[in-house]
Amino acid sequence: MARMSHTLDPAIASALKRTPDGLVAAVVQDATTGAVLMQAWMDDAALARTLATREATYWSRSRSEQWIKGLTSGHTQHVRTVRLDCDGDTVLLTVDQVGGACHVGDTTCFDARELLGEEDA
Amino acid sequence: MARMSHTLDPAIASALKRTPDGLVAAVVQDATTGAVLMQAWMDDAALARTLATREATYWSRSRSEQWIKGLTSGHTQHVRTVRLDCDGDTVLLTVDQVGGACHVGDTTCFDARELLGEEDA
Repeated sequence: MARMSHTLDPAIASALKRTPDGLVAAVVQDATTGAVLMQAWMDDAALARTLATREATYWSRSRSEQWIKGLTSGHTQHVRTVRLDCDGDTVLLTVDQVGGACHVGDTTCFDARELLGEEDA
Repeated sequence: MARMSHTLDPAIASALKRTPDGLVAAVVQDATTGAVLMQAWMDDAALARTLATREATYWSRSRSEQWIKGLTSGHTQHVRTVRLDCDGDTVLLTVDQVGGACHVGDTTCFDARELLGEEDA
């Protein structure tokens, strides 16, 4: 995959409300099942690359680098749609997920830890 | 509604990976339709209150105050489940949403702005 950089449409860039470190949240939903798979972060370049290539691309806060989902694991996300929320700080992606979305092997990153269950459970 | 403060379970508090300003992201999904309704932020007190009361409670970054969803609009969210993601920086809520989730009147906060549509659209 080419390492060329992508530039964000100025109309989109001006609509973003970024965190102090220049990121927007990205919520990722399975286009088929509707499951919320993961939440990640994007800088402008990652969002631009996602829109241009339909390969879900994020910014890793822990590694401080751009991260193309599935590049090493093979668990890619083909992006079907991207929507921006009303206050401009979050994008919602619907994707075709190959394999598990979570790096620990789970289907979603929310599988392992339930903080509150159903009332009648 | 009582203004008492709630304290977060230390086991949960220690699992959180907060932003520099002390927040975790909260992704909110309609328990019935599966639609992703909104994304918001929680500090420890907002998460503790949500877990204790099942009333979705957030931290407003713009107003710098705790915010009980629907307290003024009536568009409350009754919380069914709360899950923490693998890296501890995001919670996923499933809720019973009364009225529109978005403050501009839409069903979800992602209704208005599509950045990328389906390929065959």
